[in-house]
Amino acid sequence: MAEQVHYAHPFDDDKLREECGVFGVVGVADAASFVALGLHALQHRGQEAGGIVTYDPEGGFHQARRMGYVRDNFTSREVMDTLPGAIGIGHVRYSTSGDKGPAVIRNVQPFFGEFAIGGAAIAHNGNLTNAVALKRELIERGSIFQSSSDTECIIHLMARSMGRTLVDRMEDALRKVEGAFSVVAMTRSKLVGCRDPLGIRPLVLGRLGSGWILASETCALDIVGAEFLREVEPGEMVVVTAEAGIESHFPFRPRKSRFCIFEHVYFSRPDSLIGGRSVYETREAIGRELAREAPVEADLVCPVPDSGTPAAIGFAHESGIPFGMGIIRNQYMGRTFIEPTEQIRNMGVRLKLNVNRALIRGKRVILVDDSVVRGTTSRKIKEMILDAGAREVHFRIASPPTAWPCFYGVDTPNREKLLAANMSEEEMRLHLGVDSLRFITLDGLYRAVGEVNGRNPASPRYCDACFSGEYPVAPADMMDQGFEMKTAAE
Amino acid sequence: MAEQVHYAHPFDDDKLREECGVFGVVGVADAASFVALGLHALQHRGQEAGGIVTYDPEGGFHQARRMGYVRDNFTSREVMDTLPGAIGIGHVRYSTSGDKGPAVIRNVQPFFGEFAIGGAAIAHNGNLTNAVALKRELIERGSIFQSSSDTECIIHLMARSMGRTLVDRMEDALRKVEGAFSVVAMTRSKLVGCRDPLGIRPLVLGRLGSGWILASETCALDIVGAEFLREVEPGEMVVVTAEAGIESHFPFRPRKSRFCIFEHVYFSRPDSLIGGRSVYETREAIGRELAREAPVEADLVCPVPDSGTPAAIGFAHESGIPFGMGIIRNQYMGRTFIEPTEQIRNMGVRLKLNVNRALIRGKRVILVDDSVVRGTTSRKIKEMILDAGAREVHFRIASPPTAWPCFYGVDTPNREKLLAANMSEEEMRLHLGVDSLRFITLDGLYRAVGEVNGRNPASPRYCDACFSGEYPVAPADMMDQGFEMKTAAE
Amino acid sequence: MAEQVHYAHPFDDDKLREECGVFGVVGVADAASFVALGLHALQHRGQEAGGIVTYDPEGGFHQARRMGYVRDNFTSREVMDTLPGAIGIGHVRYSTSGDKGPAVIRNVQPFFGEFAIGGAAIAHNGNLTNAVALKRELIERGSIFQSSSDTECIIHLMARSMGRTLVDRMEDALRKVEGAFSVVAMTRSKLVGCRDPLGIRPLVLGRLGSGWILASETCALDIVGAEFLREVEPGEMVVVTAEAGIESHFPFRPRKSRFCIFEHVYFSRPDSLIGGRSVYETREAIGRELAREAPVEADLVCPVPDSGTPAAIGFAHESGIPFGMGIIRNQYMGRTFIEPTEQIRNMGVRLKLNVNRALIRGKRVILVDDSVVRGTTSRKIKEMILDAGAREVHFRIASPPTAWPCFYGVDTPNREKLLAANMSEEEMRLHLGVDSLRFITLDGLYRAVGEVNGRNPASPRYCDACFSGEYPVAPADMMDQGFEMKTAAE
Amino acid sequence: MAEQVHYAHPFDDDKLREECGVFGVVGVADAASFVALGLHALQHRGQEAGGIVTYDPEGGFHQARRMGYVRDNFTSREVMDTLPGAIGIGHVRYSTSGDKGPAVIRNVQPFFGEFAIGGAAIAHNGNLTNAVALKRELIERGSIFQSSSDTECIIHLMARSMGRTLVDRMEDALRKVEGAFSVVAMTRSKLVGCRDPLGIRPLVLGRLGSGWILASETCALDIVGAEFLREVEPGEMVVVTAEAGIESHFPFRPRKSRFCIFEHVYFSRPDSLIGGRSVYETREAIGRELAREAPVEADLVCPVPDSGTPAAIGFAHESGIPFGMGIIRNQYMGRTFIEPTEQIRNMGVRLKLNVNRALIRGKRVILVDDSVVRGTTSRKIKEMILDAGAREVHFRIASPPTAWPCFYGVDTPNREKLLAANMSEEEMRLHLGVDSLRFITLDGLYRAVGEVNGRNPASPRYCDACFSGEYPVAPADMMDQGFEMKTAAE
Repeated sequence: MAEQVHYAHPFDDDKLREECGVFGVVGVADAASFVALGLHALQHRGQEAGGIVTYDPEGGFHQARRMGYVRDNFTSREVMDTLPGAIGIGHVRYSTSGDKGPAVIRNVQPFFGEFAIGGAAIAHNGNLTNAVALKRELIERGSIFQSSSDTECIIHLMARSMGRTLVDRMEDALRKVEGAFSVVAMTRSKLVGCRDPLGIRPLVLGRLGSGWILASETCALDIVGAEFLREVEPGEMVVVTAEAGIESHFPFRPRKSRFCIFEHVYFSRPDSLIGGRSVYETREAIGRELAREAPVEADLVCPVPDSGTPAAIGFAHESGIPFGMGIIRNQYMGRTFIEPTEQIRNMGVRLKLNVNRALIRGKRVILVDDSVVRGTTSRKIKEMILDAGAREVHFRIASPPTAWPCFYGVDTPNREKLLAANMSEEEMRLHLGVDSLRFITLDGLYRAVGEVNGRNPASPRYCDACFSGEYPVAPADMMDQGFEMKTAAE
Repeated sequence: MAEQVHYAHPFDDDKLREECGVFGVVGVADAASFVALGLHALQHRGQEAGGIVTYDPEGGFHQARRMGYVRDNFTSREVMDTLPGAIGIGHVRYSTSGDKGPAVIRNVQPFFGEFAIGGAAIAHNGNLTNAVALKRELIERGSIFQSSSDTECIIHLMARSMGRTLVDRMEDALRKVEGAFSVVAMTRSKLVGCRDPLGIRPLVLGRLGSGWILASETCALDIVGAEFLREVEPGEMVVVTAEAGIESHFPFRPRKSRFCIFEHVYFSRPDSLIGGRSVYETREAIGRELAREAPVEADLVCPVPDSGTPAAIGFAHESGIPFGMGIIRNQYMGRTFIEPTEQIRNMGVRLKLNVNRALIRGKRVILVDDSVVRGTTSRKIKEMILDAGAREVHFRIASPPTAWPCFYGVDTPNREKLLAANMSEEEMRLHLGVDSLRFITLDGLYRAVGEVNGRNPASPRYCDACFSGEYPVAPADMMDQGFEMKTAAE
Repeated sequence: MAEQVHYAHPFDDDKLREECGVFGVVGVADAASFVALGLHALQHRGQEAGGIVTYDPEGGFHQARRMGYVRDNFTSREVMDTLPGAIGIGHVRYSTSGDKGPAVIRNVQPFFGEFAIGGAAIAHNGNLTNAVALKRELIERGSIFQSSSDTECIIHLMARSMGRTLVDRMEDALRKVEGAFSVVAMTRSKLVGCRDPLGIRPLVLGRLGSGWILASETCALDIVGAEFLREVEPGEMVVVTAEAGIESHFPFRPRKSRFCIFEHVYFSRPDSLIGGRSVYETREAIGRELAREAPVEADLVCPVPDSGTPAAIGFAHESGIPFGMGIIRNQYMGRTFIEPTEQIRNMGVRLKLNVNRALIRGKRVILVDDSVVRGTTSRKIKEMILDAGAREVHFRIASPPTAWPCFYGVDTPNREKLLAANMSEEEMRLHLGVDSLRFITLDGLYRAVGEVNGRNPASPRYCDACFSGEYPVAPADMMDQGFEMKTAAE
Repeated sequence: MAEQVHYAHPFDDDKLREECGVFGVVGVADAASFVALGLHALQHRGQEAGGIVTYDPEGGFHQARRMGYVRDNFTSREVMDTLPGAIGIGHVRYSTSGDKGPAVIRNVQPFFGEFAIGGAAIAHNGNLTNAVALKRELIERGSIFQSSSDTECIIHLMARSMGRTLVDRMEDALRKVEGAFSVVAMTRSKLVGCRDPLGIRPLVLGRLGSGWILASETCALDIVGAEFLREVEPGEMVVVTAEAGIESHFPFRPRKSRFCIFEHVYFSRPDSLIGGRSVYETREAIGRELAREAPVEADLVCPVPDSGTPAAIGFAHESGIPFGMGIIRNQYMGRTFIEPTEQIRNMGVRLKLNVNRALIRGKRVILVDDSVVRGTTSRKIKEMILDAGAREVHFRIASPPTAWPCFYGVDTPNREKLLAANMSEEEMRLHLGVDSLRFITLDGLYRAVGEVNGRNPASPRYCDACFSGEYPVAPADMMDQGFEMKTAAE
C-alpha cells in the first residue's frame, strides 16, 4: 500500500548507498538532543528520513518520524519538546529492502511495539535476508504488518515469543532472523545493541559523562563529545542501563567475523575509526596501493569529489605526481532544477560539479574515484575533463569492479545495471572512453586495509560479496525470487 | 505513545460532538473524488482528520490520511492522483475512544490490514464498548497495535479469524465486538457496509449511475448527485460489487432497533433524511412541541445559531411570536486569536457570535438552543443578550436535560461536567441567570420524532441514554473503569 | 508586473463584492490584537488579503501583510509579536481597481511612506476615480510606484505636498483625489479617519476604555467590546490622539451626502448599525416592502442563504406565508474540489448548498435573494429546487435590477455580463426559467431604508448608480477608457 | 519599518561575507531557467535571498523574490512558469548596507521601476558609499522608498533623470552614485551591465548559442554551458540586445582600476577565472608564497575546510610536508540544533567540522586558513586539534591581517571586533593559543596574484583597504556617521 510522502530524492544515483545509521543513548538528560546530533553526524548513511523514540516515566514512549534531513526536522523546540526523557534511540535511512518505491513514513524507523509485558522500540542497520519468508509466516498466523520494512518482523517475533523479559524476547527474535543487522533497541530503562554473528555492519560503544552511547560510527561519538570505548563484537548483544552499565550477551552460535569491506572504501565517514584506524588513513593507503599496482605517467592527480579525495592524496604521495582539485563541487546542491532548453547537456552533473578548467587544460589527468557502479557519472565527468582541454584521462578506481549486488543493507542496482557485471575492464575502458582504466585488485584492497598477505581465499576476513560474489549468508528471500548465486565456474 | 500532530482544535467545546462520518463507493471511475466530496458533506460529523483508501488493479491499495478539513487536504491533484481506482472508502473523525490527547495521524481511519488471503480497509462510526478488553486479549496473543483506535481491534480479529474469505472474516470479527458501529469496509472488489444489531448510528445506501454508495447520511448522496435507495438495516451487512450489486447478510442475533435520538436533535445535517423525514422538519416539529409544552409571553423568538434555527422557526410558528435573527454568526471563524489585554471579556464567544443589538433592545426574547451541555456558552450568550438591552431572556431547549455520557461514539464530558447531571432545572435557571428555562420533555421529543404516544418506557424505540441513563448495550470497558450504571432508584 | 501569490479565490463569483474594510485604533496596549479582531469582524468586506501597520517608540513602524484570512494570518504569537505598539491600522481587501489579475502582496494595504518629516501609513475603502490620471502625472514627475493600488497615489501626493505636518499633507493629498474613499491612516501618534465629501463608503468612530477606534462598520466595535460613538461625517477628517481625543476637520467643499444604498442591501453585516438602524431590520423591511409590491400565492418563503435570510423573514411576516430553510448551506466550504467525472453536474453549487428536499417537495416556493448579477447562480438554484420536486418557483429580489457597474469600490462585472443591463424583467424570467420574477422597485427600496416618500429624483439621498446609472462622481478614468455614462434618453 | 521574514541564518559568522551575486541573460528561450542556474552557481556570494525578473511581450515584466536558497525557491514549475520570457536578470544576496536587521523581502533585488518611458529592473553587487546622502535628498524631493537597499536610489535617480531612453537615464543615475557596483539591469529588450570606474567587483560576459550572458563569475557561465568572452571593463557599460549584440559605453571619467584582492583570497569560487587565471591556482600560489615567507618544521599540512584547501595544497607542495585532511566537514550542515545540556562544549563548530583524530595524533600540524576575522572559529579549531592529540599547532593564514572594514559590498564586523585591528601578530598568537601564527605579507599576496614586484605603494593595483586601510573611494556615508579614515601616522 503506497502512502506517499513528497521528498526530494538524494542526488547521487550512481553510487552504492548505505541504507541506515543508528544511534542510542541512555543516562543523560535530554536524550533526544543527543540522538539528533548523533543522527546528524550519521546523515551520510541515510538521507531520506529519520526517526527518534524516547521514554520518560511521566509521558511514556514518544516518537517523531520525518522525511528529510535531521537538520531540518529535529532542530526546532516544537519537535524536540515532544521527545522528553533520559533514554532514546534514533535512525536515519535511505530505504529499506522491499520498498524501492516512493518514500513512505510508515517505513521510517525506529519501530515501536506494545507487548503484554511492556513497550519496546527497535531500529537496525543492515538487511534481513529471510524477512520475506518470516513475514509470510507471521501474517498467516494473524500478525498485521504496518510497514514493508524488514525490521517490523523483529517486533512481531518478539510479540509471539514466550520470553519473560523484553530482552529475552529480543534474543529469541534475533535468533530467528538471518542476514546483516546492527540493532539498537530500547525498553523503558534498557538500551540494547546487537550485531549479527558475522558483524557485517558496524556498531560502536561510547561513554558520555554518566551516560552510554551506541552508534554506527565513531564520528557520532565525536559530535556529542563522547569517548569511544570499543566496538560491539560480532554476535554480541549489549544491554546497557544507566545504573548497571554494560552487560554482555552472546545469543548466537559463534562464527568468524566478516565485516563489510566497502565500509572502508566508501560508506563510513573518513573521520570514523574502524578497527583502530581512521577510515581516512585506510583510503589514503588504498590510493598508495593503487599507485603501486597501476602506475601511469601524468601531470595531475585529481579526485572525483568528495569521496575520492583521500585515495587521490595517497596516489599522489606514492606516485610523486602533483595533487590538485581539478573538479570543484557545488556545496549548495539540492533539488532538481528545471532544464531550460535543449541547449544544455550534462546539466545534472554540472549542478554538482564544475571543472577547474585552467588547472586541467593541456594536462594528462589521473582521476581517482572510489568505485564505478553504473558508470554513467564517470562518463559525464570524463567528458567535462576533456571539454576543459585535458590531454589524457586516466581513471583509477579505489575498489575492485563491483559485479555483484549486496543483500546486506546496501542499495545496489540489479546485476544488469552493474557495469562490471557485464563488461571486462577493457570493455569498460572503451565504454567510458578514457586512455586507461584500472581498479585496485581485491588482494590490493585487503593489503590496504591491513591484511599484509592479501585476501585469504579459504577464509576471507571481510564480506566482499559485491566484488567476489561470495555471499557469507545465503540470501534466502532473493533466491526464492530467482537470484542465482555464483557457481564454481564463475 | 504520543506522536503529535499540530492541529487547530475545533472551536465549539460546549456541544456534544459526533465522532465520525463514513463514506464508500464502488463501480465509478475516480472513486477517490467521490469519497472526498462525500466526506466534505459529512464534515460536520468530524473535523479533526480524514482519510481515504482506494484500490486499483495496477497499483494495489492506496491511502492518504491527514489532519484537518477535507477541503484543505483532498482537493489538490497532487494528493488525489495518488488515490486511483474505482473503489474507495473514507472517514472523517473528531476523535476516537481511548484517545482524548493530542491528535495523532496513526489513529486516523480507514485502517488497512494485509491478511494471508488479501488486503482490506475498514472505517467505522460509533464506539466499541468492549474494545479495551479485546485489545488486552489480542496483545497477550501476540498482536501488535499501531493505534489507540478501537477500529484496529476489528483488523486483528480478522487476522486471527479462520474464515475463508475476507467477508467471512469480517462477519467473524464483528460478531465479537459490542457497542455502536456503522462500518464501511472494502476489499479489492467488494464494498461492505454493516450496522450494529441496534442500529445506533446511521448508514444509508445510494445509487450513482452504475455505481453504489454507502454513507452516514443522505446529504452525502446529494452532493454527488446520487439517488437515495434505503437505509442499511440494523444488524444488516451489505456486500456490494460493481457487477453483482447488493448482497444482504444478517450476521447477528436479531434485536429491536434503538437508533440514536440525538441524531435528530443535533448531529445530522438538517437536509438529511432519517426514516423518510428530513431532519429539518423533525427539528421544526420539536420547536412546535416545545412551544406547546413551555409557552411564554415574549416579543421575539431568536435561535442560537446555527443549530437552533429550525426549532426556533417551529417555536415561532406555533406560538405566533415573531421569529428574528437576534444573534449573528461570523462565518469566517477559525483559529484562536491572541487576546489583547484584559479589556476584552467574553472574547471567545464574540469571535463567533454577535448580537443584533438594535433588534434585541427592549424586547422579551426567547432563545431557542438545541441542547445544554456544560452551560458555559449559554451563560455568555445570555450576557450578550442582556448587554444589548433585552428586557427578559427565556431559554427553550430542543432536547431534554443531558445528564448521562454517551458511550456509543459521541464525545461527552464526564458526568461532573454535565450541568443537568448536577442541577435541577430551577438550579440551572439560576445558574444561567435567565427569566425562564425549559427543556422539551422526553415524551415530547418522542412525539416530535413521530411517536404519537410518546416514549414507551418498557421498550423505547430510540437510544436515549444521554437523557434517560438507560444504556441499551452495557458499556463493559467503562464499567471496568468504574462507571456506575443508573440504578433502579435513580 | 505580476508577482504572483498563491491564493484560494473566494468562492462566490456571482455577487457584487465589497472591496475593502478598514480599522484603526489608538491609545490601547497591544493595538495590533485589536486591529486583528476588528479586521476579522470585517472579513466579509474582503477575503483576499489583509495587512496591519503599528508603531512603537522603540522599534518604529512595523508591518505585516498576508494573502488569505485574518484568522489564518494574524493569530500566531510569531506574527503578532512583530507588531508592537499602542497605535495601529489595518485593512482587508478583495482586490483593488486596476488589478484584476492574480493576487499580489505588493498591493495589500496599508501602504507606508517615509517622508522627510516622518512616516505615515494609510489604508482606504473605496475607489479613486481619477487615480489613473494622477498616477500618470506623478510618474512623469519621477515617482516610482510599487503597486497598482490607487491608494499609493495618496502617498505620493503627500510626498510632494509642501504641507508642514503629515496631517496637512494628507489633507492636501485627499483634496486632489476624486471618488469614494473612507480612509484610515496613522502617523507616529495620530490616528486619522476621513470620508469623501459624498460619504459613499461607511466609517464609524468608537471608544474603548482610554482608546479610540475607527472602523468600517459597528460590528467591528462590538467584537472588541467598544462603544459606538458616531459615524464620521461625509467630508469630515478626524484626527485622533490618545491624549487630546478627536479633532474634527472639514477639508472639502461641502456637498449633499450620497451613501451607498447597496451597503444596506448586501455589503454590510446584518448586525451593523447604519444611520441608527440595524442592517438586519432594514433588510427585513425590504422583504416586507417586496411582499407588498410583488405578492404571489405560495406555500413556502425560502431564503437563498445566507444573505437573503432577513428579507425572506420580512417577506414571510408580511405575506403570512410560512418561512422555511429550504436551502442548506455547507459551513465548511473552501477550496475547489477536483471534479470526478462528467457524472456530476452543478458541482460548484452543490459544494456550497443543498436543497432540503423533503421540505420543498410539492410546494410552491418563493425564493428570496438579495440581488441578481450574472444570474448564473440563480439558474442553478432554480434547477436544484425543481429537481427536489417544487411545484412552482417564484424569485423575489431584494434590490432593483443591477444594470450599471460601480466605480466606487465595488467589484462589478462589465455591463455585458450584467443580466439586467441586457434583458427586460420578463426576458430575465424566461432566462432563469421561473414562474415569476420580481425585483423591488427603486422607490420601494428607498422607502424600506426609511425615505417615506421614496426616491427624490431631483436629489436622491443615496448613491444608487448601480441601479439608476446616475453617477454622483463622474468616473474620469473609466470615461478615458471609453465608458459611456447614461444619456438622458436611457 | 520592519517586515519580518523567517530565515535560517547562514552558519558561518566568522568570515567576511560577499554580499551579492548577479546574473543576466538575453536572447534565449526560457531565460528564467538560465538565471536560476546561474544564481545557483553564484550561491556562495549570497545565501540569504534571491530574486529574478523577466520580461515577455505578452505578460510584461514578471518578478519572484524569495528568502533562502535558489535550489529551494527557483526549481518548481509552479514558480518558474510565472517567469516567462527571453530576457531576465537575477540576484542573490547576503544582506545590503543599511539593513543588518532581520531579513526583509522588500530588500531583495532585483528592483523594478515603472517610468514614464517604460519599465526597468536593476540589481547590483557592491555598495554605494553615498547612498544615505542621496536617499535623504531624494526623499526631500518627494520620492517614496520601499526598501532600505542602496540599489533603490538608482531607480529613483532614473525616475528623475531627463534622459530620453532608459539607458540614458541609467547612465545619468550611475554617474551620481559612488562606491563599488557591478550592475546588471534590463529593459524590455536590453540587457545592461556596468562596473564602477575602479572595477572593484567582478562582472563577466558570456555567449550561449544566440544569447548573451552577464555574470559575477565565470563559474556561472560554466553551469549553463556558456562560453566566456571577456570581463566587463572597469567603468564600462555594456548594452546587449539579442539582435545587435554588445554595445560598449564608458560613462565615467577614466581611472586606474582597483579590483578587490579579497575576491582572489576567499570570495570567488576556485573554479572561476579572474584575469585569465583560475582562482584555485592563485590560492595555491598564495600557499606556496606563504610557505616561503613563513616556513616551519611540521608533519602535516592541514587545510581548514573548505576555503583553505588550495592554499594548503600549495603550502604542502612548496614545503614538502605531507598534505592531509585532518579536519572533515559535515556536508549536511544547516540549521541550529538544540543544545542538549551543558555537557557539550564547542557544539557549533562540531556540527560543521570533526577532527580526523587518528591522523592528527602526535603530529606537528600546520593549519592553513584563508583569513582570520574575529578569531572565534580559529580558537575552537585549535582546541579540537589539541584535544585530538596534536603535538604542535601552527596557523598559516593566506591573507594579511584583516584590520579595516570594507565599505564596498562586503559584510565586515566593526573595527572593535576585528582581531587584527586590536592586536599585534604576537598578541593574536597568544590569544589563539598556538605555537606559531603567520599571515602572508601584503607584498607576498600581491606577488601571488601575479605582481612580480609586489605592491606598488604609490599606486596599488588592487583595492586592499581591508588590509591597508587605504580606501580608494572615500566612504562618505560612513564618515558622516563618524568613521575615521586612516591617518598618515597609522
